[in-house]
Amino acid sequence: MTSRYKSYVSIEQLTEHVGQTVELRGWVYDKTAKGKLVFIKLRDGSGIVQCVLFKPNVAEDIAERAGELTQESSVIITGTVRAEQRAPGGVELDVTDISIIQIAKDYPITPKEHGVEFLMEHRHLWLRSTRQHAIMRVRASVVKAIRDFFDGNGFKLQDSPIFTPNACEGTSTLFETDYFDLGKAYLTQSGQLYAEATAMALGKVYTFGPTFRAEKSKTRRHLTEFWMVEPEMAWFDLNDDMDLAEDLVEYIVQYVLQTNPRELAALGRDVSKLEAVRRPFHRMSYSEAVEWLNANNVKLNRKQPDGSEIQIDFPWGEDFGAPQEEALMTQFDKPCIIHRYPAEVKAFYMKRDPNDQRVALAMDMLAPEGAGEIIGGSQREDDHDALLARLQHEGLPEEAFQWYLDLRKFGSVPHSGFGLGLERTVKWITGAEHIREVIPFPRMIYRIVP
Amino acid sequence: MTSRYKSYVSIEQLTEHVGQTVELRGWVYDKTAKGKLVFIKLRDGSGIVQCVLFKPNVAEDIAERAGELTQESSVIITGTVRAEQRAPGGVELDVTDISIIQIAKDYPITPKEHGVEFLMEHRHLWLRSTRQHAIMRVRASVVKAIRDFFDGNGFKLQDSPIFTPNACEGTSTLFETDYFDLGKAYLTQSGQLYAEATAMALGKVYTFGPTFRAEKSKTRRHLTEFWMVEPEMAWFDLNDDMDLAEDLVEYIVQYVLQTNPRELAALGRDVSKLEAVRRPFHRMSYSEAVEWLNANNVKLNRKQPDGSEIQIDFPWGEDFGAPQEEALMTQFDKPCIIHRYPAEVKAFYMKRDPNDQRVALAMDMLAPEGAGEIIGGSQREDDHDALLARLQHEGLPEEAFQWYLDLRKFGSVPHSGFGLGLERTVKWITGAEHIREVIPFPRMIYRIVP
Repeated sequence: MTSRYKSYVSIEQLTEHVGQTVELRGWVYDKTAKGKLVFIKLRDGSGIVQCVLFKPNVAEDIAERAGELTQESSVIITGTVRAEQRAPGGVELDVTDISIIQIAKDYPITPKEHGVEFLMEHRHLWLRSTRQHAIMRVRASVVKAIRDFFDGNGFKLQDSPIFTPNACEGTSTLFETDYFDLGKAYLTQSGQLYAEATAMALGKVYTFGPTFRAEKSKTRRHLTEFWMVEPEMAWFDLNDDMDLAEDLVEYIVQYVLQTNPRELAALGRDVSKLEAVRRPFHRMSYSEAVEWLNANNVKLNRKQPDGSEIQIDFPWGEDFGAPQEEALMTQFDKPCIIHRYPAEVKAFYMKRDPNDQRVALAMDMLAPEGAGEIIGGSQREDDHDALLARLQHEGLPEEAFQWYLDLRKFGSVPHSGFGLGLERTVKWITGAEHIREVIPFPRMIYRIVP
Repeated sequence: MTSRYKSYVSIEQLTEHVGQTVELRGWVYDKTAKGKLVFIKLRDGSGIVQCVLFKPNVAEDIAERAGELTQESSVIITGTVRAEQRAPGGVELDVTDISIIQIAKDYPITPKEHGVEFLMEHRHLWLRSTRQHAIMRVRASVVKAIRDFFDGNGFKLQDSPIFTPNACEGTSTLFETDYFDLGKAYLTQSGQLYAEATAMALGKVYTFGPTFRAEKSKTRRHLTEFWMVEPEMAWFDLNDDMDLAEDLVEYIVQYVLQTNPRELAALGRDVSKLEAVRRPFHRMSYSEAVEWLNANNVKLNRKQPDGSEIQIDFPWGEDFGAPQEEALMTQFDKPCIIHRYPAEVKAFYMKRDPNDQRVALAMDMLAPEGAGEIIGGSQREDDHDALLARLQHEGLPEEAFQWYLDLRKFGSVPHSGFGLGLERTVKWITGAEHIREVIPFPRMIYRIVP
């Protein structure tokens, strides 16, 4: 691959150019002057480097231009690359020339503290800050790691559609739009059902795209628009599915550790916590988890008819919430998979455990450090009549699922899959406080601009 | 990367197992019997292999099971891999055992001809056919090539949002949805404006996701939901932009040629046409193209006030339609970039040519073989006041573009980008007749199921 369209050097390549004169293009991140020296921190999107101008060494007009530079002014700076052990990138630039492209006036995001609403209003500029920039680069790495992992393991990308024809599970959490003469279309919440169809055509597939939830959740873990990768594999059972999920998450985390040490450092991330994310992860069944909660006196708050609250043992059959998940994860320094949940709290398409009809062959992966659920998956019901009975039991419209039932009529095979939430994974790896920081332009119930 | 969860072999790996006994898992694509021989074409998603059962060599119950197999029945077949020059994959399997998972009854897509509406209704099954399967694998390769190209050239993926707050260019081609208390949200038609913001933060970025057009176009080139990759580069001018577009398209086509020879053969694609797609591509300005059309007597049909039609020379200033593009491309066996279109027919954000204010620094890439436009791009207007004037001239709401104008206030730099339509590119490379075949579940004005 060439880059004949780019004659200038990027900051991340500077260590290859020590002793050479190079031309950098970028924006002024910070500037300080001290006697005859001007220190310009230049960012170009690939990194930041300190450019040092020693006034006696340059013509007067160049020193004057350095004086004019303000935060976020765009410039072309020429200089000689000098190795500098103490610099974060290992190099500095001794400035020989400066061309000003534009002097930025009154850049709104100054080094002082700003409120989060102000920053969100200026998200298009906030992304230039060291911290947001680092998160965005880690996000790009996580996506690349995911795609490399699947492409390298014989999976084929198969995009599931965004527009879906039925509000099968109720419209309360679905975004809808008018669709010509066909009535309404609904924005997908998951590409899984379609991935099951493509898996029967291509064996091992993944779908990776935006998904949508019109939930009125105002938590630090909810977006209305978020990206999800969903592998689906013919012939995989629940154990294979859990193995694959472990392999994937280990691969992602180790890839980011290798690829983004500078970004993790900029974020102040404790990398030892990520280095610990090595297979095998922990695993326990839902029933074991309930036992652990009760043995460790993790009580459930339950409202009484009279409005008072009492604390009870966790009853087998209820779904876990964040408090139970957090309590469980206090034991672990790497992810844990909880498997075999009560069938009644899980989706209709999950296969029952042949050894215990009360539970579904489902699994969730919880990440450590309070990051919570990042993966949910299952072995799918592959028996036509059992699936039909589940559909009917849940009052779902049989007609709308006819094509999905077809997959159990024509060469049905055991198959499994899961979904990994991209933003929750990036939030965990970067240690970001809030999920709004890990996607370039977050969409939440109270935010749709810029 | 391990695959400890997969002990069976995939058909595309069979050539590495000649002489060995392997277990294949898949579906019966076709079956014929001839005396003591049964020939089972097995597909597993990675490929197709002929499995040969010689009755005297196996127990009676195994031969009986072979007899029961129908199209799309799911099976596990064990056998010995034998090199076979005449076989498409170079190998055949001598069957020693068969386990039936499910016998498929009355699979609806038989080897006979089916109407396209019937096939589209059964899209979830149609994807299993050799031709659709090959197209889907090429599509996956095209996506991988695009991502590898950008990731390998210092670009960072930055997802643009799907929900956008304003119907800036009129609502007629936009899908809209209610968005909580914030009014309406509109589904994105392009991630470009957001990519311009992230390019100022990260230098070179690309956004790659689904985009939406509520156009009532019933052509072989229109989908309501399609994928587009949009690179955006700080510091690139129009020439850099065109160079990058050429590099990308060459890379994609050569990657598919290397990666998917079997699929291209299954599609009957004339690969010599693709081998010719090598840099440099052709380039001509819009003005040169108009001259060529008129010199070659390619007339424009123009309706007269009385309803009659006359043929006129192509007038400078009008946009090209499919007839002009097709006529122009008859000269070429590889793509051609047309650049510097009349500013009035192009979008407000495109920069005017400083050498000729009548034209915008825009470019479209047309693919050969009648494939038409696959890329549209431009150098962007980077001057705040010029951009504001264009917004006002077009009657666009200034307030909604405030954040976009900010990019021209705070360190504005020359920058460029383009969008490549994934489905149009896959349609061209595969030679598919209709765009509905190049996406797993196409969405058109008259189709939203399955």
